[in-house]
Amino acid sequence: MEKLQQVYEGKAKKVYATSDPELFIVDYKDDATAFNGEKKGTINQKGIINNRVTNHLMKLLEKNGVPTHLVEEISDRETIVKKVTIVPLEVIVRNIAAGSLSKRLGLPEGTKMKQTVLEYCYKDDELGDPMINDYHIFALDLATQEELDLIAKYSFKVNEVLSAYLKDLNIELIDFKLEFGKTTDGTIILADEISPDTCRFWDTVTGEKLDKDRFRRDLGGEEDAYKEIMKRLLGE
Amino acid sequence: MEKLQQVYEGKAKKVYATSDPELFIVDYKDDATAFNGEKKGTINQKGIINNRVTNHLMKLLEKNGVPTHLVEEISDRETIVKKVTIVPLEVIVRNIAAGSLSKRLGLPEGTKMKQTVLEYCYKDDELGDPMINDYHIFALDLATQEELDLIAKYSFKVNEVLSAYLKDLNIELIDFKLEFGKTTDGTIILADEISPDTCRFWDTVTGEKLDKDRFRRDLGGEEDAYKEIMKRLLGE
Repeated sequence: MEKLQQVYEGKAKKVYATSDPELFIVDYKDDATAFNGEKKGTINQKGIINNRVTNHLMKLLEKNGVPTHLVEEISDRETIVKKVTIVPLEVIVRNIAAGSLSKRLGLPEGTKMKQTVLEYCYKDDELGDPMINDYHIFALDLATQEELDLIAKYSFKVNEVLSAYLKDLNIELIDFKLEFGKTTDGTIILADEISPDTCRFWDTVTGEKLDKDRFRRDLGGEEDAYKEIMKRLLGE
Repeated sequence: MEKLQQVYEGKAKKVYATSDPELFIVDYKDDATAFNGEKKGTINQKGIINNRVTNHLMKLLEKNGVPTHLVEEISDRETIVKKVTIVPLEVIVRNIAAGSLSKRLGLPEGTKMKQTVLEYCYKDDELGDPMINDYHIFALDLATQEELDLIAKYSFKVNEVLSAYLKDLNIELIDFKLEFGKTTDGTIILADEISPDTCRFWDTVTGEKLDKDRFRRDLGGEEDAYKEIMKRLLGE
């Protein structure tokens, strides 16, 4: 299988076509952005860590009944994935109040909520990825009821599997963002990445943040935090 | 029944206790506000119009199976209502894109959407009445699943009844905001008001705005617009 032309460049990844029309290659960058691209920087080795952490977690999810786009890791930064059309939704799952939810609802960060919260944001940089609900999704024709039911079901399953897995590594899964895609035959599968870029990971003992908030909030130590996550998950 | 001490003053209404512990008296003011109270003004006779229009529409809704807080209109500006605890949600029903939805989704005002949209905002002035979803509502314990199902069912029914009724008067119901309350025995009923303050009414022929957007957007003619609504609905 041959790596062909670049089909997409996002904030943290590039995507390439391949000689197989059903497969893409994802190439993870060290570039870090925050606040809809307003803040820019680099986190050394982030691309390698996010590639490996994502694949490690997607394998775990596949075993637990969540279909993903993962096919095969081919280098430190590159992975073969199934070609999908991304459903233009950021699906956010929240166990503990933090970030934009804390601001929106006036809940201090760290507040344990009565139940897990699922949010959808419309992936549109110009609009600033606004939060939307099921009705907006159907009114805009972004997904069908059946597709959204499946997306919600998978998202809660991801939360269940990852929360339990990470707890054993002394990591509390505060919240995370998922993206789903549709394969050419219309199947909904988990796509994008699952990494310290897209999750809030707090050390269960010290409460230390082991994720992109270190970069967003200028806390420092982001490289060490990303490395610590890879060490706990992959033992290296 | 005696009118006793004021128990609440909102932006457009005052509420008084009465000698009957299950009843309140609502007193409609001419004060107009917009943008979370940042813009202030007066619309002459608005209190009278909103009182009479609200009661007229609530009677229509009662006949069509939507329970409301309406008991009896006792003066131009005053109405006896059932005492409720307000569920802290603004329930917004949208048939055509306008206002904050147009901004949020990048849809030009007047866009007909694929389906009616229901939105919830958390009634909290300090937070700016943020939009929230079902999960936030349960996480914050603002309503139970059963209560929210009923609120959604009633809201769609209100839309169905009012849209048909207003169409015959050459008024298109673009969108509107409802509030619900819980009586002392826990029953969910429609409360607050239904008026040009809380609805977008567009003339079906000319497209002219017959609602508070005239005030919000400095279009002028708000008094005439409110009077026109009363004339079409109440024939006077």
